[in-house]
Order: sequence, then structure tokens, then C-alpha cells
Amino acid sequence: MPVYKAPLKDMRFVLHELYDSTAIAELPGNADFTPELIDSVLEEAAKISEEVLFPLNQVGDREGCTYENGVVRTPTGYREAYRTFCEGGWTSISADPDYGGQGMPLTAAMMVEEMFCSANVAFGLYPGLSHGAYVALKHSGSEEQKKAWLPNIVSGKWTGTMCLTEPHCGTDLGMLRTKAVPNDDGTYSITGNKIFISAGEHDLAENIVHLVLARLPDAPAGVKGISMFLVPKFLPREDGTLGPRNGMQCTAIEHKMGLNGSATCAMSFDGATGWLVGEPNKGLAAMFKMMNTERLSVGIQGLGIAEVAYQNAVAYARERIQGRSLTGTKAPEKQADPILVHPDVRRMLLTSRAYIEGCRALAGWVARELEILEKSDDGDAKQAADDFASLMTPVVKAMFTDLGFEIASLAVQTYGGHGYIRDHGIEQYVRDARIAMLYEGTNGIQALDLVGRKLPQDGGRLLTRFLDPVLEFIDAHQDNDALAEFLPALSQALEHVQEATGLIMEGAMTNRDEVGAASVDYLRLFGLASLAFVWARMVAVAAPKAGEDGEAAQFYRAKVQTAKFFMERLLPQTGALLAAIRSGAATMMEFEDAAF
Amino acid sequence: MPVYKAPLKDMRFVLHELYDSTAIAELPGNADFTPELIDSVLEEAAKISEEVLFPLNQVGDREGCTYENGVVRTPTGYREAYRTFCEGGWTSISADPDYGGQGMPLTAAMMVEEMFCSANVAFGLYPGLSHGAYVALKHSGSEEQKKAWLPNIVSGKWTGTMCLTEPHCGTDLGMLRTKAVPNDDGTYSITGNKIFISAGEHDLAENIVHLVLARLPDAPAGVKGISMFLVPKFLPREDGTLGPRNGMQCTAIEHKMGLNGSATCAMSFDGATGWLVGEPNKGLAAMFKMMNTERLSVGIQGLGIAEVAYQNAVAYARERIQGRSLTGTKAPEKQADPILVHPDVRRMLLTSRAYIEGCRALAGWVARELEILEKSDDGDAKQAADDFASLMTPVVKAMFTDLGFEIASLAVQTYGGHGYIRDHGIEQYVRDARIAMLYEGTNGIQALDLVGRKLPQDGGRLLTRFLDPVLEFIDAHQDNDALAEFLPALSQALEHVQEATGLIMEGAMTNRDEVGAASVDYLRLFGLASLAFVWARMVAVAAPKAGEDGEAAQFYRAKVQTAKFFMERLLPQTGALLAAIRSGAATMMEFEDAAF
Repeated sequence: MPVYKAPLKDMRFVLHELYDSTAIAELPGNADFTPELIDSVLEEAAKISEEVLFPLNQVGDREGCTYENGVVRTPTGYREAYRTFCEGGWTSISADPDYGGQGMPLTAAMMVEEMFCSANVAFGLYPGLSHGAYVALKHSGSEEQKKAWLPNIVSGKWTGTMCLTEPHCGTDLGMLRTKAVPNDDGTYSITGNKIFISAGEHDLAENIVHLVLARLPDAPAGVKGISMFLVPKFLPREDGTLGPRNGMQCTAIEHKMGLNGSATCAMSFDGATGWLVGEPNKGLAAMFKMMNTERLSVGIQGLGIAEVAYQNAVAYARERIQGRSLTGTKAPEKQADPILVHPDVRRMLLTSRAYIEGCRALAGWVARELEILEKSDDGDAKQAADDFASLMTPVVKAMFTDLGFEIASLAVQTYGGHGYIRDHGIEQYVRDARIAMLYEGTNGIQALDLVGRKLPQDGGRLLTRFLDPVLEFIDAHQDNDALAEFLPALSQALEHVQEATGLIMEGAMTNRDEVGAASVDYLRLFGLASLAFVWARMVAVAAPKAGEDGEAAQFYRAKVQTAKFFMERLLPQTGALLAAIRSGAATMMEFEDAAF
Repeated sequence: MPVYKAPLKDMRFVLHELYDSTAIAELPGNADFTPELIDSVLEEAAKISEEVLFPLNQVGDREGCTYENGVVRTPTGYREAYRTFCEGGWTSISADPDYGGQGMPLTAAMMVEEMFCSANVAFGLYPGLSHGAYVALKHSGSEEQKKAWLPNIVSGKWTGTMCLTEPHCGTDLGMLRTKAVPNDDGTYSITGNKIFISAGEHDLAENIVHLVLARLPDAPAGVKGISMFLVPKFLPREDGTLGPRNGMQCTAIEHKMGLNGSATCAMSFDGATGWLVGEPNKGLAAMFKMMNTERLSVGIQGLGIAEVAYQNAVAYARERIQGRSLTGTKAPEKQADPILVHPDVRRMLLTSRAYIEGCRALAGWVARELEILEKSDDGDAKQAADDFASLMTPVVKAMFTDLGFEIASLAVQTYGGHGYIRDHGIEQYVRDARIAMLYEGTNGIQALDLVGRKLPQDGGRLLTRFLDPVLEFIDAHQDNDALAEFLPALSQALEHVQEATGLIMEGAMTNRDEVGAASVDYLRLFGLASLAFVWARMVAVAAPKAGEDGEAAQFYRAKVQTAKFFMERLLPQTGALLAAIRSGAATMMEFEDAAF
């Protein structure tokens, strides 16, 4: 049976040691969130993750959701777990206190989210989607709408969804057909078919609030004619009780590669009553507010699955005995050595570890900037934070989910043939991880967002929010012996980013296909450079503490050693990626269509 | 629904144009196998693959095998398909005519095998395992045993298995516990438990011939005390009819990530009657004869799945419309352009194509050498062929299966969210492909075999069987304009191989862990260099024909363009792999065990 223990030590390291947590506590509204309080929240989150959510992860995969006549049932135990989840206040931790939230800093909330994703990513989607709906509604809804709908979403009494995709359009929402016709009373009548609606129907909550993209009768064609509507499953009465069922139903759930505990619904809206959220024809922008939150969350899914897969691979590598060390017997009392002695097993584990801890540190940085954006009253700081988070959102989404899949697959590899057997629970991580590379915009779309939109935006200002701190860091640590072996590798990765950026921007002036041709390789190159930077920062913090005795020092030594592994064995990929980018669009565009 | 058309044109290119097929036809016993005959066999193989095996691929995944009281039932349609398969002579194509085989060259047989793997890899395991048993028995059995058992295996009337793995040992067979006690009549009584036995029990054939590894009472400990026994499900009578049931049963089948149509059995032997095959205590060597055949077959599974996944990705990319080309509308008559216009979609397709066609060409080379080894009467040629096949077996097994999984995942990515839905049949390829990286020796074990065994063997002679032809080719084509842009990349990849080889061999003299630390990266580096060489050879053949008009020329132009894509975008990975190898074992071995 799989195991999971929340990596609290590493999370605390990122929150309190790597970054300056006092600066976060000094933001308006954060005075109560002392390091001690945050630590105790993390411990509680660990408890519910390990004890309530994790034990349901395999059950959910095995049973999946069931569909019958429009009714969707979640797997055994989900209802009780969801109740416990809501009672513990986990649906509301980072939400605005004005609507019943706890206003916790996003830095801590992101760590909590990682635990939920490790423990049970399929379950986590239900509150996860609700949070996305909360964000969109909070940003674009009227005061009246917010008062009417947000408290029940924040408390978890009701859940939320985002209804974008239609059978013929996913990436290209300009083609969407769902219609919204105004009624006399100010509401709208919504008609159309949506697919791939996570948590579109289920038995966890008494009501479901759908945010639906649709077209008004006079809407312009394409993405400029899309509006957002709030369409609840049940129409609430004035007194807050639930009224009649709205004109929609779930017509099927998908049978998927994984994520079986999450209901992926086909929804049919047939004159359902809805309310316009925000301005007419501005629905896509409103939905993107939600989408950006979701994209970061999806990145955290990749990280969370990677963490739990890694933990199980370590446990198996310690326990499984097979063969002897190439350098001589290590466990003479046993019939064979634990496979942890084999260099290649350690390579797989350290690869996983180096990516996971790097991603967690990078996520921590993004969360800090989002927290500043949300709560700071310093305009310049907010702008810088917004720039940085915008730049990094596609990187977190795409790189973390690519790595989540790769690391889950490495865990299977560590298990050997046993990894392929369902009972062990490891192959589930590969299947569950695979979706994150696809939904909320495929990873190819993320890369286009990074290269085609974020890099050129505002004259390249967004990228400087990353480059400047790296250059400052390199400069500040020129005489730091602890970093002597790391800075050249970091500098070279940075040069690769700069050269690739220049090449693409120049190429794109004459041929826009150069953007698409380079995008995925660029995103990984940029992501690796970002990881190199956070690894160097972690070394700067850990190295001075690594020389002491005791278990605490072991943690810091492991940090420095993992950084070394990352720099020496993984970071060199930037060179190959740069070479691929240099080759440009020609090799892929000149190939004749008919020859594929 | 998925599609599959056997890539006959490319197969013929490899068989007849890339390599010299007359040399194969001139080998003893091959006179009948004219290019025309081989082409017609390929066409027939395409027909049964496309029309009989492929339509059962999704059914087999959905239904899986069922187990009840020791009886295993294969999915709907498998029995009929197996009958058709046997009647068509497909179980016997490459087998020795002395035992009812058709003696077809392995060069053609490997292409046929690829088609079966594309069409239905789970089904293909049943005859695949039989073929492995055929090879082992033919190599190590007595004349009497061969006459008694081989004809029914060759005809497909009976099937075969290899029973190695036990619950506590897979890689490390030295620990195996199954016992063989001599009976008075010269037979042995076999007792023990085996797991992961593909085709261990099923309803396709009237009898199953198990080749079981077990220990004699006085056997030395470890791998030097393992013997091989033939243990049939039913004991045949003198007259050839089936006698009593033997003392064994299937106690369970595994529920797996994929490959559901293939029964993976736990087998319990309880005093079953068996016959010693080959000499006592030499069972592992005998089994390795089978294992090497199986390892190549598993590599071909990776290639076969990659091919069918790629074909479906292409079909979807042509048909799915979404968004517009970055360089302006390409299909103005449609609401959006087919996604094939997007550079990143083309990157995914060309990456797949470049690996697939490269692997097919490399497999063709290995098959030639195996055919020479099997049929030539020239001792030097046989030795050279044996060396080359030994060197390449782990590369084919590991690299092809790694790539099979990667390419199946790229196909899912091309499909976007739809790729995650079971009905589309694409995610099945990811699940089915994953096992090939694990069984018949994990890919980590393959890499150790390459670096720890094959490289140092006979003073490094095996590697020269690859290096020499590459150096000769580079030398011979110095003035060939068609190759001018390809030779520098090939030369550099070769230098990377040479540098890495030197580093590892030198490091291994003082620290054996250097072998394990470098092995997986080395295998990929070596594999990429091998693909670079076959791509250069393909260019040498295709370039002169690429300039003409018509569809034929398009095929050759596509070859040259794909070669360019491979060299520019994929081959640069060798630099990153070399850098990782250079860093040595220290970063992974110094990491403290307790810190994982």
C-alpha cells in the first residue's frame, strides 16, 4: 500500500528560511499569521491529507464515479471526507474574510494545496474548482452577486465549476456556440452543450454554481463575443433555501485514463436561468482570472503527485532487496542489498528530488508575489508581483506537470514490474498525472503563452522580473565560497535563456512560426534556469548550516548535495534545448503536409 | 476510433533500399525468399494486423482477461483471432523448417512482428512468448525433446512461456527458490511459486509448455545453481494425444496498468512433472538465449506502439480544427485551421517520426546481423554479427521502449483533453507501452548490461562493430554533398560516445559505481548516435531520389527532411548526456541514505 507523509520540514524551509516570511506577515491583513500559526495550519493540513484524503485515493481510482439518469455518485468515502474537509475550514483558508474566508497568505495556502494534491488529486478537484469559481466571481461579480453566492462557495456548502469547453472547441474558445438569451427579468436563458466539466455534477454538496461562457444574441464573432454567466444547479429562493431545479443536466461522465474519483461531466443547458457576471462580451477576460489561478493549481497537482510518487519510490528502494552493490556487499545480513545501493536507482530518486524541491521553492516564490499582489498597498511592488506571476504561471503549469508525469513514471521504474500492478498504487500516479499536461490549456498552449505573449509584453519587462534578481544574486555572491561551484552553471543557464530569447524575438519579426517552433523547448529551458536559480538560493541558505552535527545539519547537507546533482546532471539539458531552438522553424514547417 | 495502416512503404525502404537485400537472399536456405515473396508476406501480415488483430485491441483493453478457479479466459474475439493467426502460419514464419517452420529471414520477420505489436500488443504476447520458448528449446533441448515439443509450438497448437520471476526475486534470479527433485523415471518433480508469467494460463491453445527455472537438490547457491525444466500443462501421451493434467495451476491474474488482453499469471507448481532442458545448473544461460530474443521483441513492441500512436496523432492533427496558423489563415473555408498548421504540433509529430523511422532502420540492421548469425557459414561474419547483435540488444530493448512510451504520450498530447478519454483509444497506448520499460529486465538493467558487460567484453571488440562502420561511412562520404550538413553532427555524436566510453571505462577501474552511475545516460547517448548513423545512411540512399517529381520523390524528400529534424533538434541531447556522465558517481553516491 502506498505511503504519504507531508513534507513539512521542506515546506517550512521554503516558507521561513529560503524566503523572508516576516515581509509576508507585514502585509496588510496578515498580522495574525505568525510563523507559529502557519506551522500549526500546515500540521493540521498534513493530518487531514494523510488520514482522511490519502486513504481514499486508491478507492476512488478503483470505483470511479458512477452515472445514472443525470445523477453522479462519487466513490465510497468521498461524501464523508468532503464534510470533514468543509468542517475543518479547508475550503476557505485563503478566501476573503468578507465572505467567510480566513484570509491566509497564499504562500501557506499553496503548501496546503500541494498536500491535498499528493494525498488525493481527484478529490482535490472538487474544492479546487470551487476556489476557481470563487476567484472569478470575486473579481468580476457585482457586490450583490458576491454577497449572494460567495459565502456558500467559501464554506463549501455549494461548489463551483467553470464551463468553457464544447465538443468542437477547447483551445479555440472563439468557436463556442452556447447561447444566452435575455429574459424580461434581467436574467438570461442559457442553451448549449459543454464537455469536460470537472465537478459538473456530484453528490458532495447541495448546490453547484456553474460559471458558463456563452454568447449573447448580438455578440460579435470570435472571442470578443463571449460573456460569462452564473448558472446554479438549483435556483435559490430569497430566504436562502433552495428553490426549483434549473434547466440543465449532466448527460454523461467520461471514462478516463485516470483521475477516476473526479466526475468529468458532459453538461446540457436547455434554457437554464443564468445571471450575467461582469460586462457583456468580456467573459473571456473574467474567466482568465479564474484560469490563471487554476493553472497554478494544476502546476501544484504535478508537484503534489511527484512528491507522493517519490516518497513511495524511496520506501520501496529501502525495502526491496535485489542483487548486490557493484562495489561490494552492503547488507551482508540479508540475501541481497536494498536496491537503494544501486547508482541508477539513486539517479532516479535524486532526479525526482531535485525537481520536486526546486519546484516547491519556485512555487513558494510565485506564491509570495501573488500574496504581495493581493494584499500590498505599494503600487510598484504590486506591478512587479503581477509581472512575475504572469511570467511564471505558464512555467509552473507546464513544467511542473511535465515533471509530475516524468517523476511518477520514474517511481514506477523504481518498482520494476511491480510498479505496473494496480494493487501497489504506483501506476495510478502516472495515470492521474497525465491529465495535468492537458487541461486548463495544454502545455503547448502554456509555452505559446510564455513565448508569444509574456515575453514581448510591455517591451520585455516581465522577463526582467526574473533576470534582474538572478543577476543581482550572482553579483552579490561572487565571493561566497559556498556558491563557487554553482554560480558558473547558473550563469551559463541564464546566458542560454538570454540567447534563446533574443533569437526567438528576432526570428518572430519576420516569421511568427518561430514563436511556436521554439516555445516548448524555450519553456523548459527557462524553467530549468529558474530551478537553477532557486537551487542556488537554497544553497546560499543551507550551506552555512550544513557543516554542523545532528539531524538538522543532515537536512542542509542534503540540500547542498541535491543542488549539486541538479546542476551537474540535469541543468546541462539547457544546452541541448538551446541547440534545438537555434535550428528554428524551418525543419518543421518545410515538411510537406501530405508526407506525414 | 483509432486507425492503423501498416507502414509497408517504409518497411520496404529499409529492407530493400537501405540495406542490401540480395546479400540476405544469398545466405544458405534463403534462396526462395526473393524480394517479391517477402513483399507479399508483408502485405499479408498487414492484412491480418489491420483486419483481425487491430479491431480487438480496444476490446481486449476494456474486457481484460478473467480468472475463475484456475481458468483464464481471454477477451472476446481472441480465440477466433488466434485460430486465424495459426492457420495463416504466422506462428511459424521464422522457425526452422525441420520443425514445421517457414525459415523466413529475420529481417522480414521483424517487420511482421512490428505490425503485430502496432495492431495489438497484448494479443501478440501469446505467440511472442511461444516463439521465445521455441528459441530456448531449439538451442538447449535434446534432439528428442525438440522433435517431441517444437512442432506443436511452431504450429501454434501449443503455446509456451518462460517462468523466471518469483515474488521475492525478479532481477536477481540468484535468489530463486523453486525446487526440482529427480524422479525415478528421469523426470523431475517441480515445486514453487512463480509470478508475472505472461500467457501462463489461457484458453487459446490446448496445451501450454512452461520453461521453468528451478534448483536441483544439490545445486550451488546463486545463479550457478539454476536449471531449466520443461513443464507442460497437460502431459502428452506416447500417441501425441493429451494425457492427464500436470501438477500446477494458475492461482491469480494481475490487474495491471495496461496490456489487459494479456494474462499475467501467478503460477503454483506443486510437484509438477518436468524434464530437464540442457545441462544441470546451466539453466540461466539457456534461458538467456530466449531472453535475448525476447528483449529484441520487447524493443519492437516499443516501436510498434510508437508507430500506431503516431499514425493516430497525424490523423487527429489533420482533422481537428482549432485556432489559426500564426502566419495567417490556412483553411479559410473552415472555421479554424487544422492543428497540423501549428509548429508545436508538427514538432511532436516529427519527433515521433524521426525516432520511429530511425528505430525501424536500426532494427533492420540488427535483424540482418541476426540472420547472418543464424544462417551464414562464414565464421568471421557470424562472429561479427553476434558481437553486433549482443551490443545492440540492450539498446533496442531500452531505447525503443523508452521512446515508445514517450511517443505514445506525445500522441495523447496532440489529442489534447480528448487524448485522456478512454473511448478515443489513445491513452491505451501509453498504458500498454509502459510495461515494456520494465519486463525482460528493466531498462536500467539493460543499461548495465550494455555498459558493464558488453562494452568491456573481449577488450572492447563489440563496440568496434558499431564504431568501424560509422567511421568508414564518414570517410566514404566526405565528398558527398547530400551528406555535407549531416556528417559533422554524426561525427560529434560519435565523439561523444567515444569520450563517454573512455571516461566510464577509466572510472570503473577505481570505482565500479561509475558504471551504474553512467549507464542509463550512456545507453541513450549511444542509442542517439546509432540513430544518427542510420539517418545519415538513409539520407545517402534517399537524397539522390528526392529531387524528382511525383509521390515517390515526396517519400525521399520526407526522409531527408526528417533526418534534418533529427540531427538539428534531437541529436543535440548527446551533449547534455555527456555532461551528465562527466559528473560521475559522486553526486549520487555521497548523498546520505537516511536523507532520502
